[in-house]
Amino acid sequence: MKDTGSAMVEFMADLYPICRSITGNGVRETLHKVNEILPIEIVEVPTGELVFDWEIPREWNITDGYIKDPGGNKILDFKKLNLHVLNYSMPVSGHFSLEELKKHIHTIPEKPDLVPYRTSYYKENWGFCMSHNQFRTLEEGEYEVLIDSSLTSGSLTYGEVLIEGKIREEILISTHICHPSLCNDNLSGIAVSAFLGNMLKSREPHYSYRFIFIPGTIGAITWLSQNESKLGRIRCGIVTALLGLGERFTYKRTRSGDGYIDKVFEFILKKEGVLHDIIDFTPYGYDERQFSSPGINLPVGSLSRIPYGQYHEYHTSGDNMDLISGKALTESFDILDKVIAHLDADRRYLNLSPKGEPQLGKRGLYDNVGGRNDSQLFQMALLWVLNFSDGNHSLTDIAIRSDIAIELIIEASEKLAEKGLLKLLN
Amino acid sequence: MKDTGSAMVEFMADLYPICRSITGNGVRETLHKVNEILPIEIVEVPTGELVFDWEIPREWNITDGYIKDPGGNKILDFKKLNLHVLNYSMPVSGHFSLEELKKHIHTIPEKPDLVPYRTSYYKENWGFCMSHNQFRTLEEGEYEVLIDSSLTSGSLTYGEVLIEGKIREEILISTHICHPSLCNDNLSGIAVSAFLGNMLKSREPHYSYRFIFIPGTIGAITWLSQNESKLGRIRCGIVTALLGLGERFTYKRTRSGDGYIDKVFEFILKKEGVLHDIIDFTPYGYDERQFSSPGINLPVGSLSRIPYGQYHEYHTSGDNMDLISGKALTESFDILDKVIAHLDADRRYLNLSPKGEPQLGKRGLYDNVGGRNDSQLFQMALLWVLNFSDGNHSLTDIAIRSDIAIELIIEASEKLAEKGLLKLLN
Amino acid sequence: MKDTGSAMVEFMADLYPICRSITGNGVRETLHKVNEILPIEIVEVPTGELVFDWEIPREWNITDGYIKDPGGNKILDFKKLNLHVLNYSMPVSGHFSLEELKKHIHTIPEKPDLVPYRTSYYKENWGFCMSHNQFRTLEEGEYEVLIDSSLTSGSLTYGEVLIEGKIREEILISTHICHPSLCNDNLSGIAVSAFLGNMLKSREPHYSYRFIFIPGTIGAITWLSQNESKLGRIRCGIVTALLGLGERFTYKRTRSGDGYIDKVFEFILKKEGVLHDIIDFTPYGYDERQFSSPGINLPVGSLSRIPYGQYHEYHTSGDNMDLISGKALTESFDILDKVIAHLDADRRYLNLSPKGEPQLGKRGLYDNVGGRNDSQLFQMALLWVLNFSDGNHSLTDIAIRSDIAIELIIEASEKLAEKGLLKLLN
Repeated sequence: MKDTGSAMVEFMADLYPICRSITGNGVRETLHKVNEILPIEIVEVPTGELVFDWEIPREWNITDGYIKDPGGNKILDFKKLNLHVLNYSMPVSGHFSLEELKKHIHTIPEKPDLVPYRTSYYKENWGFCMSHNQFRTLEEGEYEVLIDSSLTSGSLTYGEVLIEGKIREEILISTHICHPSLCNDNLSGIAVSAFLGNMLKSREPHYSYRFIFIPGTIGAITWLSQNESKLGRIRCGIVTALLGLGERFTYKRTRSGDGYIDKVFEFILKKEGVLHDIIDFTPYGYDERQFSSPGINLPVGSLSRIPYGQYHEYHTSGDNMDLISGKALTESFDILDKVIAHLDADRRYLNLSPKGEPQLGKRGLYDNVGGRNDSQLFQMALLWVLNFSDGNHSLTDIAIRSDIAIELIIEASEKLAEKGLLKLLN
Repeated sequence: MKDTGSAMVEFMADLYPICRSITGNGVRETLHKVNEILPIEIVEVPTGELVFDWEIPREWNITDGYIKDPGGNKILDFKKLNLHVLNYSMPVSGHFSLEELKKHIHTIPEKPDLVPYRTSYYKENWGFCMSHNQFRTLEEGEYEVLIDSSLTSGSLTYGEVLIEGKIREEILISTHICHPSLCNDNLSGIAVSAFLGNMLKSREPHYSYRFIFIPGTIGAITWLSQNESKLGRIRCGIVTALLGLGERFTYKRTRSGDGYIDKVFEFILKKEGVLHDIIDFTPYGYDERQFSSPGINLPVGSLSRIPYGQYHEYHTSGDNMDLISGKALTESFDILDKVIAHLDADRRYLNLSPKGEPQLGKRGLYDNVGGRNDSQLFQMALLWVLNFSDGNHSLTDIAIRSDIAIELIIEASEKLAEKGLLKLLN
Repeated sequence: MKDTGSAMVEFMADLYPICRSITGNGVRETLHKVNEILPIEIVEVPTGELVFDWEIPREWNITDGYIKDPGGNKILDFKKLNLHVLNYSMPVSGHFSLEELKKHIHTIPEKPDLVPYRTSYYKENWGFCMSHNQFRTLEEGEYEVLIDSSLTSGSLTYGEVLIEGKIREEILISTHICHPSLCNDNLSGIAVSAFLGNMLKSREPHYSYRFIFIPGTIGAITWLSQNESKLGRIRCGIVTALLGLGERFTYKRTRSGDGYIDKVFEFILKKEGVLHDIIDFTPYGYDERQFSSPGINLPVGSLSRIPYGQYHEYHTSGDNMDLISGKALTESFDILDKVIAHLDADRRYLNLSPKGEPQLGKRGLYDNVGGRNDSQLFQMALLWVLNFSDGNHSLTDIAIRSDIAIELIIEASEKLAEKGLLKLLN
């Protein structure tokens, strides 16, 4: 069996060529591939449906796109790299002078060897993206241009699954699926989310876990609009994005800045000894913007490695399979796995012998030769759990305060419960 | 038209020779000059009136004062420097031996070239102040002494103006006017306050602004005593003093240490990039002592540059027109202007489309070609205002949290209100 | 008269040879010696009595213990060092092969020249402790062994005194007395506590002070169990231990971390300029564990110098009279004396002239020549006390906030009360 890192890389390579957008067949195809890792429901919301302040747009599909130079040579080909066509471009077919064509070409002069990723979702337009190096070589003459796309009444598509746990309270994990051939942004988030969900299914978790795979912005707004009555079940959430590149993690806090999920991420990132930055909420970035809008206000944090916009290849053809690493993906998966383990194991117990310490020795829980200097960590865990199982502190609180790994805290609490010293509250 | 800095310097030069005290004609003359910049009401409170724990003292006036040496030479002359006479000195006229005279002369041996400023408001006494260098040259013999002063039933005088804004809630700006020929302490505070008031009059401010020009301690107590019923209208206040000297600002927090005015000053001083220190409230300094007494407890902060007592020339003849600079005064004016702009522009709005982000693009508020890396600051301002216009945050809160200039936050909020996305709360 | 440091050292030297444990005559003898410094009640709690989750064990006494080598030489003698016998060892008498004997010998291979201190309170066992150096020299052959101890129905003994103050509210000072010939741990705590109590008796304190001298863990649990109905009177407490060794102090916070006693210790340790660390509560260490158990939850902090387990000689024969110093003991005494002075002097007053400052000059409390730069500390103390005597701040709060010594704050408050400006609240 493959290790998770390699499996995620392979999965991403499979998804890479697909031309995704906020609607269309590329999204559907992507969700079907996610479905092979983590069975999901694929939801279609028809064009024209109102979602809060927005309306589901026409569905965009595309089959071809190219530019031929005056000599008839195909100098740009959508089939080789789907970034070459402006995402959501109107169809076009015809001949244009260089001057006319240039008005429809996007480049990044400061990154002359990279093809930019550009979109025009809400304004009718057509266009191409190319490297500035290529742009500079274009010669005068008449160019043949084709964009074989369609904007038709259809639907917006998203994927969703609820992994039911022992309790109905939910943890939300959301990732954006609208970017075409870009790897770190955000095949990495899709892969890590899908593989996390796959792992959780086999675990009989305590909480219920809702994974959503949604187009950015409009997808989040659509999902929120359609699920508003269920939002009260969500204890907290995590937006995953940009998980395949960089030495450091970036955890972006919830809007309030002191949520339960914030405490857990800060503890795990420190405890695991990984390089990381903790940043405050800003109303920009990924769909935490929507989850944290004032009328929704869910406690949703976000995990990335290098944050959006801060790497050279961001939103360009350079964000390809060469950029990301299985090691970074695995690390990202592991951190999220740890965070979920923490969330999922969290319970509150009540100490049933709260006056002084109970006599652990007579219950076989304490070393019987006293006076030694090497008090064991497990015995410390017992004492921490007893002292703070006062109804106000959960096991996660105790792990954070004692700086003892949650696994040992759980083991201690189970031992104490077994001996009748603790009662499970929730 | 002169720049404000030069105008303030000129105004101070005009006030410098006047012999001010806590009562008397010097105060009246000073207030008449303030009235030329900022029209104020001049209030007289009669001798003997009870003001809280205090009583308005007899009014002090002085026309002349000198010492003649045994040879008949005038060696000290009130008319040349009013600091030479102990402020509130009883009248005296006669001949004294050097030994007798010396009991009535104040000097500062550690600053031998400076004439000290000394007062004796509440204990009957007469005296002179001279440089220690001069003091050491006094020879034995009989000295002729005159202090032509009077202590009579009269009144304590202060100045006040309310610049009415759109709402009745008030911002208080207070400065002490009792020091005679001392420039930084506190002609600087008088000048900056008067010119700020002058500017505010032309602005139709939102808040109402109350400027008071009062003798230190007894003046503040008098004003509080006479206006107790109106104190509930004061949202916050600023004591201005020592604004003409030094590289750094000193902001002294309100008594609670976490007032609204504290947040604004801390933000502006940081945002403007000026050197500054933030210090905690102490029950010493200027009239913030009175405004912050436990039975009054107004949230009043204080802005100075070098704090009281911490410069060599403090309370001496060295605190003259050569000491202060137009540049420092202008900077002080500008910081207070910024602070007032912040206070005055502050509003709370309610986001009327609070579920997810509203679609800014269809309202012409958002760049229509997506995917670019250079999200503009104005678009960030829009998102910050939308996200935090939840009823709990004012524009100032949003500016501080986003670290975006208040002007841009205001512009964003006005644009959003115009498009019907925000409703003004207050 | 001897200085306190020398007196404490002498007292410890007197206690050093006694074989203490959690019960038995060694404890009684120790308490009788404490009684000579600080008269205490000596309380006996019979074997078998239930105390919360525990039961008073059989009483342990011992008169002799030795090992004779195959040549008949006494190679280990309880009478020379009581650590040589496992504390709470069962009696034993007989001949053993080296192999058999070794199963009952405790050493510390990493500290080969030191005899360890070991206990077996709750598991029947017999044993000896020796240096590893000696252990390595033991030769094959038959050894004669004697432990002349007894485990019989008796009682657990502790000492207690309430020094009654003007009010019934109590400060608790607790120290553990169960360690045999170990000096820093904890003859130092016993000595400092006893001498503090002695000093307090002569002082007519404001609070009542309860000193308890108790065996560790079981003693604290016993005391709590027997005094549960009185715990509501305890305002806060201090556990004293390890006060004779090391350059630095360690103050361990109460369970909540922000107790009144925490504020006082942090202020005093800083104000006195001693090297110190402030550490958070952990449910380990000394009897703060019991006082801070969730069903008791008293605000009890702990003062030590080098914390438990962190010095080479900890729980070994190296913790003898050579290790501790009179200087360290005196410093510890002095810090606790200061802390108690703070606690005991603490009052809340109400400013009866709270609107503006009262006129101090007319009451002879203020310098009458104004304008000077050298405002005196006492006048500052007057202003601090007036400003913060608002019903919410005690004198200790004011001392901490103003950073003025409590003695001066007290003097200022007494002067102001005398002049009718303050009313004592409590």
